[in-house]
Amino acid sequence: MIRVADNLQITHPTVEKALQEMNPEPLQQIVRRCEKAGAQAIDINFGPLPKEGARKMALGVEAIQDICDLPVLIDTANSEAIEAGLKANRKTAIINGFSLESNKLETILPLAKKYQADIIGFLLYPNGHVPANASERLNIAIDIFTEMQKAGIDKEHLIIDPIIAPIIWQNGTSQAKEILTTLQGLPEILGFSVRSIAGLSNLTAGSGYYSQRILLEKTYLPMLAASGLTMVLMNIFHRDTVKVARACKVLTNPGVFAWEEL
Amino acid sequence: MIRVADNLQITHPTVEKALQEMNPEPLQQIVRRCEKAGAQAIDINFGPLPKEGARKMALGVEAIQDICDLPVLIDTANSEAIEAGLKANRKTAIINGFSLESNKLETILPLAKKYQADIIGFLLYPNGHVPANASERLNIAIDIFTEMQKAGIDKEHLIIDPIIAPIIWQNGTSQAKEILTTLQGLPEILGFSVRSIAGLSNLTAGSGYYSQRILLEKTYLPMLAASGLTMVLMNIFHRDTVKVARACKVLTNPGVFAWEEL
Repeated sequence: MIRVADNLQITHPTVEKALQEMNPEPLQQIVRRCEKAGAQAIDINFGPLPKEGARKMALGVEAIQDICDLPVLIDTANSEAIEAGLKANRKTAIINGFSLESNKLETILPLAKKYQADIIGFLLYPNGHVPANASERLNIAIDIFTEMQKAGIDKEHLIIDPIIAPIIWQNGTSQAKEILTTLQGLPEILGFSVRSIAGLSNLTAGSGYYSQRILLEKTYLPMLAASGLTMVLMNIFHRDTVKVARACKVLTNPGVFAWEEL
Repeated sequence: MIRVADNLQITHPTVEKALQEMNPEPLQQIVRRCEKAGAQAIDINFGPLPKEGARKMALGVEAIQDICDLPVLIDTANSEAIEAGLKANRKTAIINGFSLESNKLETILPLAKKYQADIIGFLLYPNGHVPANASERLNIAIDIFTEMQKAGIDKEHLIIDPIIAPIIWQNGTSQAKEILTTLQGLPEILGFSVRSIAGLSNLTAGSGYYSQRILLEKTYLPMLAASGLTMVLMNIFHRDTVKVARACKVLTNPGVFAWEEL
C-alpha cells in the first residue's frame, strides 16, 4: 500500500499564502517534511483554483519535482490547471480525478489519454451524491471503466476511489463496511486487478477528539489494506497511522518477514 | 467481535502455583483484572493437565463463575478435565477445542453433544500440522463440520479456529493472508454464518520487541475483524490492542456511530 500525503492543501494557510505569492519554497518545505515522515507520493490539493489555476498548479508540480522524485497527484476539478500540471510534469503525475459528471468526462478524462497519465475515478453519481452501498458503487465502477474505454484509455491507467464517507453520517458505519465490500469486489467485477485509492481522513471528517480520530484511522486502515486497497491518501504527520501503514504492507505482501521492515 | 482474555495460562507462575495449591483466589484476582481490562470471556488455558486434571479444571471454572458472569473457554486437550469443567459449569462454557485427530474426535467431540456446549474446531491436519493455505483450511473446515454432524451436534454450536501461524515462520506473511481468505470463505463453504475465533498472540509468538509485537497485533486485528472474525483470543492487558478491538466493533457493526463507544 503506497502512502500518499494529503498535507499539501490549499486550506493550510502556509500553502494558500505561498500560492498567492507564487513562492515555491514554503511548498517545498512541507513536501520535504512529508517525505521524511514516510510519504511515497504527494497529493497537490489546491482546490478549485478559480484564479490563475494553470500557473499555480504548474508551480506546485515544479516545486515538488525540483526537490524529489515522489509521484504527484494533481488534485483539482479545474481542467486547465490539471493540463498545466501535466505539462509541467517531468516525472510521474496522476490526475485526481474524474467522476461521471458530464463536464468532467468531457474536460478531464481526455487529458489522461493526451498525456498518457494515470487517472483516479471517483465512485460517485453524476450529481456528486455518494452511493448507498457496495452494489451501487460497483455499478458505477463499471460505468467509469466503460467511459475510460470509450475515451481510448488503457485500463492500466485507472485507479478507483470508492469515496470514504464520514463515520458520523447517519449511515456512516454501514458505509464503512460497504467500502470494504466494494474494494473486495472490484477486481472481479472489472476483470483485472485494478488499483485503488481512498482518503482516510474522510472517515473522521467533522468531529471527534484527536486520539479518537487516530484510533479510528489506525483501525480502519488495515481493514482497507486487507480488502485490497493499493494506495492510501492520508495525513502523513499522523505518526502512529504511518506505523500501521508500514505494518499493513508487511502483512499483506508475501515474502519472508523481517522485524526491520516495520 | 468478542474479546476473550488469554491471560489465565498455566505458564503464568501465579496460575501454576494456585493450581498446585488448589487455591482459587489468585485465579480470581487475575480474572477480576481481566474483566476490568475489557475481557468479555475467559480462556482457561491449563495445558495438558497430566495430574488431577479434572479437579483442577473444575476449580478453575468454579473460581471464575463464583465472581463473574463471563463465559469460560475450557482450553485443554485432556478430555477428563474438559468433562469436569463442563460438570462444574453453571453459566456458559465453550470447549476449546477439537481437531480431526482421531483421539479428539472420540473423546472430546462427544462432550459437546452430551453437555450441549459450544465447541471450537481447529483447522489443523489430524497429525497436528498447519495447513499451507486457505484452500486446505476450507477443506478441513468441511471435514470438521461433517464430524460435527456425524456426532449429532447442532451446527450452531460450532466455532472455527483457523489457527494463526507465527509471522516469523518462513511462510508467515503468506499464512497471515491465507487466514483472512479462510475467514472470508467460511460462511459460503459451510453454508451458514459460522462463528470464528483466533489466537492473536500466536502471530508474534517467539520474538520481536514489545512495541513491534503490539504494532503487528493492532494492525492484524482489524484485518481479522473485516474478514468476519467473531471472537478474538488476546492478551487483554495489551491496552492499545483492546482499544483497537473496540474500534473494530464500532466499524464492523451497523448502527449509528457514537464517539462514546470507542
